[in-house]
Amino acid sequence: MSVSEDEITAWFAGKSKLAAADFPIGIGDDMAQIQLGDDTCVFITTDMLLDGVHFDLQQATLEQVGYKAMAVSLSDCAAMATVPVAAVVSVALPEGFGEEELKQLHSGITIAGEKFGCALVGGDITRWGDKSPFAISVAMFSRKAGNEPIKRSGARVGDGICVTGSLGGAGGGKHLEFEPRVKEAIKIAQMVRVNAMIDISDGLSSDLNRICRASGVGAIIDVERIPISDEAKRSEEPLNSALNDGEDFELLFTLCEKECQRLLKKWDGPVPITQIGTITETKKMQIKMPDGRISDLEARGYDHLKGRCEL
Amino acid sequence: MSVSEDEITAWFAGKSKLAAADFPIGIGDDMAQIQLGDDTCVFITTDMLLDGVHFDLQQATLEQVGYKAMAVSLSDCAAMATVPVAAVVSVALPEGFGEEELKQLHSGITIAGEKFGCALVGGDITRWGDKSPFAISVAMFSRKAGNEPIKRSGARVGDGICVTGSLGGAGGGKHLEFEPRVKEAIKIAQMVRVNAMIDISDGLSSDLNRICRASGVGAIIDVERIPISDEAKRSEEPLNSALNDGEDFELLFTLCEKECQRLLKKWDGPVPITQIGTITETKKMQIKMPDGRISDLEARGYDHLKGRCEL
Repeated sequence: MSVSEDEITAWFAGKSKLAAADFPIGIGDDMAQIQLGDDTCVFITTDMLLDGVHFDLQQATLEQVGYKAMAVSLSDCAAMATVPVAAVVSVALPEGFGEEELKQLHSGITIAGEKFGCALVGGDITRWGDKSPFAISVAMFSRKAGNEPIKRSGARVGDGICVTGSLGGAGGGKHLEFEPRVKEAIKIAQMVRVNAMIDISDGLSSDLNRICRASGVGAIIDVERIPISDEAKRSEEPLNSALNDGEDFELLFTLCEKECQRLLKKWDGPVPITQIGTITETKKMQIKMPDGRISDLEARGYDHLKGRCEL
Repeated sequence: MSVSEDEITAWFAGKSKLAAADFPIGIGDDMAQIQLGDDTCVFITTDMLLDGVHFDLQQATLEQVGYKAMAVSLSDCAAMATVPVAAVVSVALPEGFGEEELKQLHSGITIAGEKFGCALVGGDITRWGDKSPFAISVAMFSRKAGNEPIKRSGARVGDGICVTGSLGGAGGGKHLEFEPRVKEAIKIAQMVRVNAMIDISDGLSSDLNRICRASGVGAIIDVERIPISDEAKRSEEPLNSALNDGEDFELLFTLCEKECQRLLKKWDGPVPITQIGTITETKKMQIKMPDGRISDLEARGYDHLKGRCEL
C-alpha cells in the first residue's frame, strides 16, 4: 500500500461535506469541533490501540494499557488546549480474557480519567471468536477552556517553535506511563496567544510536518536546541530518536517571536518549555546542524498505515 | 469465563462515580447523557464490530460493513429517541488493506450517516503488524429531539410492550442492511408518552430482560402476537429465531395501556408496530403459548462475552 496516513486523511477531509457553522473544525486536526447552539460546543477525538502495535501484552499490564488508551486521547484534548469531559471505551477481547482482565483494564482507564476529571460514561465489550488479539478504542470529548481551541493550521512565518518536556526513547517504557500535557496546554494558552499546536504522537519530524502542511509554511529546527531525553541519549542515534521515535506526547506549538519570549521568561514549569526553531516561508522543513550546515528534514516518524519508515 | 455481558456492565456501572447533575444517564443504558450547561446536553454511544463476529468479510462487502458499523450506533440513538449529530470511526486494518478498501468502507459509512444527518467528523486508522483481522469502532453522539430521552428503566406494571417491524433471521443478510428506526422512535416519542425503550440488538428475550431488570419489573409475552419475520418463518425454529437471533435492530418499548391503544390506533406506518405483551410485577419474563400454557422465558439472545447461549 503506497498511500500514507496523511494522504488518506486528506482524502477523507476532501470528501467531507461538513457545514462550517455546525463543525468549525473538521477532519484533519487533533479533534473535531461540533457547535451545539450559539454558546456551546464540544470537541471529539478517537484512537484505536492494538496489541503488538501500540503495546505488547507480554510486557505491559492491562492496567498500563487502559491508562495509555485514555492518555492518548487526553493528549489530543491537550493538543487543542481543551478540557476533557467524558470518554467511551470499546474493546475486542481475545480468548481467555475474563472478569479479572476487564477489572485491571478498568483500573487503568479510571486512573487516567480521574487525573484529568474525565469520566468513563459508557462502552462496548465484545469477544473475538478465535485467537485474534486485544484491541481497545477510546472516543473522548472535551469542552472549551477559557481560551479558544488551538488548531494545527495557524502557524505564521516568523513564529517561534516550542516543545514541552524532552523527546525520544518513549518506546523504552514512557509510552505506557506518560503524563498528557492537559494542564500545561491550557496554562500556556491562557498566558500567551498560541498560533498552532499538536501533540507529538508520531515523532517531532512528522508532527511538525503536519503543522507546516496545515499552515502552508516551512520550518527550521536548530539541532542543538532539541531537548533530547535521557532515554534517547542512551540510544545509538539520539538525534534520530528525538526526531522520529514518536509517542512522546509532548506539546509542539508555534507563537509569534514576542509572545514566545514572553512565555519562556514567565514559564515556571515544572515541565520545561524549549524553543527549538522558527517557522519559515520555505514550505519545507530544514534542520541546522552544529557546524552551521542546513539540510532538509524529512517526516520520518511513525506512519500508522506504512509502519516505521527507515532513515 | 463465567461472567455475562450484563454482569460486567453492572460492575462497571457500580464503580462509576458520575455526578448525576453532569451525567443524568450513565453506564448501562443505550447511550450516556452528558449535560453541558443548563440547556444543552449530548448523548454518546460506542460500538465495536469485528470480522468473524459481527460480519464476515468473505461474504460482506466493506461498504456493507461501513454501513452496519454506523447503523448499529444510529440504532442506539433511536433507542433513546434522540437525533444523531456526528460520529468518529476508528479502524484496525489487516495486511493487504489499502486505499481502495478504505474508500469502500468510507462509502458505507457516509451512506448510513447521510441518511440520518449524522456527519463523520474524525477517525483513527491503524494497522495490525500481523495477520490479525479487521475491526471497526464507531462512537456517535446525538442531541435531544423535541421529546425527553427514553431510558430502559421506566417500564411500569401494566404497560403494553410493543415492537416495530418483525423479528428473527437477521443473520441471513438483514443485519448488514437494516434501517435504524431513528425516525420512527422520534415520531413515537412525540405522539405518546413512552416509559421505556431499547433497540433489539441481542434478541427480544435478552433485550426485554434488560428493560425488566433496569425497571424492576417482569413481563409476559403472547407468542401468537410476536411478529415473526419471513426469514425466521423459513428457519427450523421460527419462534426461537424471533426470540433469540438478535440484530433485528427494531425498537422494543413499553407505555401505559391507554397510550398504547392510542398509538396503535393512530400509527400510520410504514413500519408496523405490534403489541406483543404486558409488563407484570412478577420480576420474571414469561411467555404464553397458543394453548394458553404459560412458561418462563429466559434471556437466550447473544451475549458478547459468552457467545451464543444454546436453548
